[in-house]
Amino acid sequence: MNARTLNPESNFIEREPYYEAIGSEISIFEAAYANRLPVLLKGPTGCGKTRFMEYMAWRLKRPLITVSCHDDLTASDLVGRYLVKGGETVWVDGPLARAVRAGAICYLDEIVEARKDTMVVIHPLADDRRALPMEKLGVIIEASADFCLAISYNPGYQSVLKDLKQSTRQRFVALEFDYPSASMEAKIVATESDVDAALAERLVKFAQMTRNLKGSGLEEGASTRLLIHAGKLIAKGVPPVTACQCAIAQAITDDAEMLAAVQELSSSLF
Amino acid sequence: MNARTLNPESNFIEREPYYEAIGSEISIFEAAYANRLPVLLKGPTGCGKTRFMEYMAWRLKRPLITVSCHDDLTASDLVGRYLVKGGETVWVDGPLARAVRAGAICYLDEIVEARKDTMVVIHPLADDRRALPMEKLGVIIEASADFCLAISYNPGYQSVLKDLKQSTRQRFVALEFDYPSASMEAKIVATESDVDAALAERLVKFAQMTRNLKGSGLEEGASTRLLIHAGKLIAKGVPPVTACQCAIAQAITDDAEMLAAVQELSSSLF
Amino acid sequence: MNARTLNPESNFIEREPYYEAIGSEISIFEAAYANRLPVLLKGPTGCGKTRFMEYMAWRLKRPLITVSCHDDLTASDLVGRYLVKGGETVWVDGPLARAVRAGAICYLDEIVEARKDTMVVIHPLADDRRALPMEKLGVIIEASADFCLAISYNPGYQSVLKDLKQSTRQRFVALEFDYPSASMEAKIVATESDVDAALAERLVKFAQMTRNLKGSGLEEGASTRLLIHAGKLIAKGVPPVTACQCAIAQAITDDAEMLAAVQELSSSLF
Amino acid sequence: MNARTLNPESNFIEREPYYEAIGSEISIFEAAYANRLPVLLKGPTGCGKTRFMEYMAWRLKRPLITVSCHDDLTASDLVGRYLVKGGETVWVDGPLARAVRAGAICYLDEIVEARKDTMVVIHPLADDRRALPMEKLGVIIEASADFCLAISYNPGYQSVLKDLKQSTRQRFVALEFDYPSASMEAKIVATESDVDAALAERLVKFAQMTRNLKGSGLEEGASTRLLIHAGKLIAKGVPPVTACQCAIAQAITDDAEMLAAVQELSSSLF
Amino acid sequence: MNARTLNPESNFIEREPYYEAIGSEISIFEAAYANRLPVLLKGPTGCGKTRFMEYMAWRLKRPLITVSCHDDLTASDLVGRYLVKGGETVWVDGPLARAVRAGAICYLDEIVEARKDTMVVIHPLADDRRALPMEKLGVIIEASADFCLAISYNPGYQSVLKDLKQSTRQRFVALEFDYPSASMEAKIVATESDVDAALAERLVKFAQMTRNLKGSGLEEGASTRLLIHAGKLIAKGVPPVTACQCAIAQAITDDAEMLAAVQELSSSLF
Amino acid sequence: MNARTLNPESNFIEREPYYEAIGSEISIFEAAYANRLPVLLKGPTGCGKTRFMEYMAWRLKRPLITVSCHDDLTASDLVGRYLVKGGETVWVDGPLARAVRAGAICYLDEIVEARKDTMVVIHPLADDRRALPMEKLGVIIEASADFCLAISYNPGYQSVLKDLKQSTRQRFVALEFDYPSASMEAKIVATESDVDAALAERLVKFAQMTRNLKGSGLEEGASTRLLIHAGKLIAKGVPPVTACQCAIAQAITDDAEMLAAVQELSSSLF
Repeated sequence: MNARTLNPESNFIEREPYYEAIGSEISIFEAAYANRLPVLLKGPTGCGKTRFMEYMAWRLKRPLITVSCHDDLTASDLVGRYLVKGGETVWVDGPLARAVRAGAICYLDEIVEARKDTMVVIHPLADDRRALPMEKLGVIIEASADFCLAISYNPGYQSVLKDLKQSTRQRFVALEFDYPSASMEAKIVATESDVDAALAERLVKFAQMTRNLKGSGLEEGASTRLLIHAGKLIAKGVPPVTACQCAIAQAITDDAEMLAAVQELSSSLF
Repeated sequence: MNARTLNPESNFIEREPYYEAIGSEISIFEAAYANRLPVLLKGPTGCGKTRFMEYMAWRLKRPLITVSCHDDLTASDLVGRYLVKGGETVWVDGPLARAVRAGAICYLDEIVEARKDTMVVIHPLADDRRALPMEKLGVIIEASADFCLAISYNPGYQSVLKDLKQSTRQRFVALEFDYPSASMEAKIVATESDVDAALAERLVKFAQMTRNLKGSGLEEGASTRLLIHAGKLIAKGVPPVTACQCAIAQAITDDAEMLAAVQELSSSLF
Repeated sequence: MNARTLNPESNFIEREPYYEAIGSEISIFEAAYANRLPVLLKGPTGCGKTRFMEYMAWRLKRPLITVSCHDDLTASDLVGRYLVKGGETVWVDGPLARAVRAGAICYLDEIVEARKDTMVVIHPLADDRRALPMEKLGVIIEASADFCLAISYNPGYQSVLKDLKQSTRQRFVALEFDYPSASMEAKIVATESDVDAALAERLVKFAQMTRNLKGSGLEEGASTRLLIHAGKLIAKGVPPVTACQCAIAQAITDDAEMLAAVQELSSSLF
Repeated sequence: MNARTLNPESNFIEREPYYEAIGSEISIFEAAYANRLPVLLKGPTGCGKTRFMEYMAWRLKRPLITVSCHDDLTASDLVGRYLVKGGETVWVDGPLARAVRAGAICYLDEIVEARKDTMVVIHPLADDRRALPMEKLGVIIEASADFCLAISYNPGYQSVLKDLKQSTRQRFVALEFDYPSASMEAKIVATESDVDAALAERLVKFAQMTRNLKGSGLEEGASTRLLIHAGKLIAKGVPPVTACQCAIAQAITDDAEMLAAVQELSSSLF
Repeated sequence: MNARTLNPESNFIEREPYYEAIGSEISIFEAAYANRLPVLLKGPTGCGKTRFMEYMAWRLKRPLITVSCHDDLTASDLVGRYLVKGGETVWVDGPLARAVRAGAICYLDEIVEARKDTMVVIHPLADDRRALPMEKLGVIIEASADFCLAISYNPGYQSVLKDLKQSTRQRFVALEFDYPSASMEAKIVATESDVDAALAERLVKFAQMTRNLKGSGLEEGASTRLLIHAGKLIAKGVPPVTACQCAIAQAITDDAEMLAAVQELSSSLF
Repeated sequence: MNARTLNPESNFIEREPYYEAIGSEISIFEAAYANRLPVLLKGPTGCGKTRFMEYMAWRLKRPLITVSCHDDLTASDLVGRYLVKGGETVWVDGPLARAVRAGAICYLDEIVEARKDTMVVIHPLADDRRALPMEKLGVIIEASADFCLAISYNPGYQSVLKDLKQSTRQRFVALEFDYPSASMEAKIVATESDVDAALAERLVKFAQMTRNLKGSGLEEGASTRLLIHAGKLIAKGVPPVTACQCAIAQAITDDAEMLAAVQELSSSLF
């Protein structure tokens, strides 16, 4: 496979993504979408929010345009800007404008990381106006009927400076995500990393031990994603203890004592 | 419905918006407008300020140009700037200049969020000069007789850094907004979300309980808008307790204990 | 009246503005202007500094170019900059350069709000050099003999960060402004808002009550401008107590207790 | 006299400026210039540093290029930049490069206010290399033999953040300035403002009283410049007490008690 | 040898770099690469991380594109930007986009030093999407199958402000690096600097002494690289004590007492 | 002599600079250069670091390109940038790229003052890669064999914010500079300023007295450069006490008491 280039609007999810529902999140998302209400996903890193959005995009048959937000993301990055190309000045729609026009799902990941003007640009899209003011173009776009807005954030990480303002959050239907149950998580790990059920269960057990250490020296426990990483290394012949060390322990902490403690946990399991 | 593009000056509100007056705000706005005095709307998020502006725009038969202010909004964003298009440099009026020329209502939402130069650019528009200096064009525009300036802010959120200066606020006639009375709010919820009166009343009761928690763990109570969201989800078949959880509780707080407390309140009601 | 566009240099005040002198400010301004000394106006918001400048501009028969200063105002905004228009690069004078060339009065309102380079650009204009260095053009302009520089600031608002430096202030003749005497203020309110003398007097009495609360919960008392606003609303049929609430009380404070106290004051008067 | 435009390099001081030497500053400056050593002037605002530079420029028959430094002044502002004019890109020398080429005196007033890159750009000019690296042009200019660099700063105002670094100050011959002696100051005031000797003496006496208050409520005493302002107002018919109030007291402080105290001082004298 | 210019994509490592493995890092990197999992290298400066990447690039026969991250590095620096060249506007891929297209190894050294938008731009490349959104071009590139992402950071230096977020680190397989064992380090020093084994051993002994002082006055001990520097100076005739002083002691600290202590250590050894 | 313009690459030092070695710095620099190791010069201002670099450039017969670093110096300033000239966009190498191509000595003076991206751009030049990545050009330059990198910093001035990071300093051979011995310094002063030996000795004695005050009221003692300044003024007829005051005392401090104390010292000597 070589590098392949595609337009965001064409980003239809072609095959059903592997997704295990953890509650009624699918039907609530559908009810919100039926009412054209925007949706907010909350939850820790690596617990499946991105996969859920891919699943819903596949289910609703809409293209999925994802924007990972960061400190320097401005409203112009979302809405668009004039660019000079070949002597001509051309307007280039940003990913949000593309989604609004194409009736896509626009998913703004970790929205609170972005600059404050991005919050405001989504306000008129997130109430019953469903409109995107494009000030540099001098027009307002009323969103296509199919357009859907979703945002995510991780309440555990937010500082006071990076909180979701009430005037923003009180526009969204909010869904809370967490790690799956042990049996479902083992099923996911086995399916994704091609290890047997017993090993997957031990990896999940190990993950739960690290999650119990959250707040007592660990900032965050191991996510489902890390279990899949460890499984994949093991499937390529890396010894389980080494795989847990590299794919999990070293990935969640730098603290020497913590690393030793976690190392002991994995030695006791494998 | 597909995406539709329109000019801000053409943004006439065609149908009478649904608006229930909570006091004499309509007649005071009309007296201020008759004297060409600018108006300041104060109040919490989701209590109807935007809807009131739509209603007044419809009543006064003027186009409504709304600007949601934010940390990075500068005077140039409001007044206009030169853009290079197709080899030519063209001046593009910002939304404020458009409103000044077209005799529209310019509504600057959450004005204190904007950068400080925006305050200053509205000063000569907000006293008896009613003029907009456009320094980059090198001209001054005296506003059309129909032009109307309105701004909003939420006193509850303001920090010392983002306060409305006396030299700004002492130019406006100020209207205070709050949540409607229980019976009116139930009427609004029923009308907007298509649920029956009994359910709407219970949603309002639930909202009032959350509003009483403001300051004791909740930053803000549930707005009228959130009740409408819950109503809409219920109307699509989501069970009331789940709808209250997703549309209201999770939308106003991330705190686990608070969520449990609010959950109990809703379970006792539905 | 439709929107009207004019050049700053043509901003002659055609009709004598209504201005009641509160001391010898007119003759001192004239003596300073005769000596080509720059003038600094100090005083609270809404007490008539802008009106005084309009009056002096009318009296001295010079165009008046006002710049409202703010956090983002740079020296280039005052002096000018190169702009690209229609393929050509053109120099566009800023308002200060226009005034220097045209022999106008340049009035920099709230100068301390501007960025620091603006202070420095006025230094050589504010001593006996009376010259404006235009570094981007590579020239120095010696001001027209008629040119007059005036600045204002409000000592009550300044923080340590936004103080007028001694090297700046020790270049100006300084005039202190305050609210007019009760009888004069009543006369001004009656004249400007078209209410009868008795009502105007009661409005002034109310204003004085709020001014006495300055420092005990109010950041600033009601300015003359707000009394005129209240008068205008009353003249359009708004009941006096409501007019005082919207035009005065809500315009000067957001504090619920303070609002109640001020409300009582107005109820006792009207 | 209308506005007149001139090039910085042509800024020869044609008539001998009125300057009263306060020590051996003239001969030391001449010895430094003979050795091509740069000079640093220290002293409070309004005590005659600028006038001294004009005098030396006249005496040495070199053009004087003055740059008032500020928070936003960058090395490019001093050295030069590319500008696009009429389709062509042209290099425009900044004032420092002009002085270096033309063998002028470059006087950087309040150097510590400028951005840090300005300090560095003068370093190779301020040691025996006497060279200006122009990085954007890709060349180094060795200064004309006549070139002279002088800078000023006011030690009383500097904060820790805006101190002259040892690596900068240890390149200059430093001259300290202060207010002139009483008799000389009276002579200067009488000469410049056209008042009689007795009044000039009383103004100087008044200035000395304010200077004694420095540190006890006054940030800085009245400068010689302010005495000249007061003298000029008096010469136009303003009563002495009023002139002292507007030209001196209000120009040095905003503090109500201090103003009253200073007012009493002036009343006792005039 | 004169200066030679080459394209990043052509940066194949032609000769096997000298690299001594300290554990199973080579096989774990290969297992991660086989699963297309990104890799994070942790460890102190000068311990061989860069050399390891050169070795893996040679082993995997992929070009190596290294980016040294810093405070001002933005996502655009990595992804690319439009540049105007000869009248035409051309898109120029950044080093990350080049690596994604060419199937190279992209090694982001000291990633936490970069601006926050860089973190986000690598997120979709660092999970199973393996895609690079190029927002300014308006396209998404799916990475070539050969593409490999590696990042490094030094946990010892990180402040709270410059920590690797859990949402970033939980995407990587992490390898911890440290100084080699004494015998291996001596072998490396002798090989690289052409000194005899005995001297190399004494240099390593000296290095270990400085490493023991870490935390008691030294921020960091001497790295392997510094030992090679000292060896090279000695090989050119510099006396060992002087070489240790210049190449090691002065390179790790400025503290006079610490320098004296370290000097004594080296005197006792050589 | 008129202003003369030259290219940095042609900056060969034609005559042997006057330099008195204070230790083995010349041979260590030569050994480092023979190994192509970069060099770091440490020491206080005015003690001869710049002169030493001129001397080594003369000795090694390489052009010397000096960059004085400052807060706003970016990697682009060192590496180069695209400039638009006469309708064409041209790449202009920065001083570092010029040195890398021409095999010059690039001397970055006070490197820690520069922005952080400059540190990073020199990292691959300062290890055995000896390569300069020019990201905007999209190429990597391998340095000419003659290229030499040298940097300086003054440990006494550095704050925590402006420290040389271990990952930077552990790439350099470090040379420490200090003031010369008394007899050598007297020789230097006599040679450079054309005063007799006795006077030069007294100036050195005076300098040593000020250096003893370092830390007890003086931030830094008098540098050799200042002694030469004083000598030059004396040679032009300025009395020694006055010369010490202007060229030394006022150049090192603003403190009135300190100035008096230093004045007394000089009076006792001359």
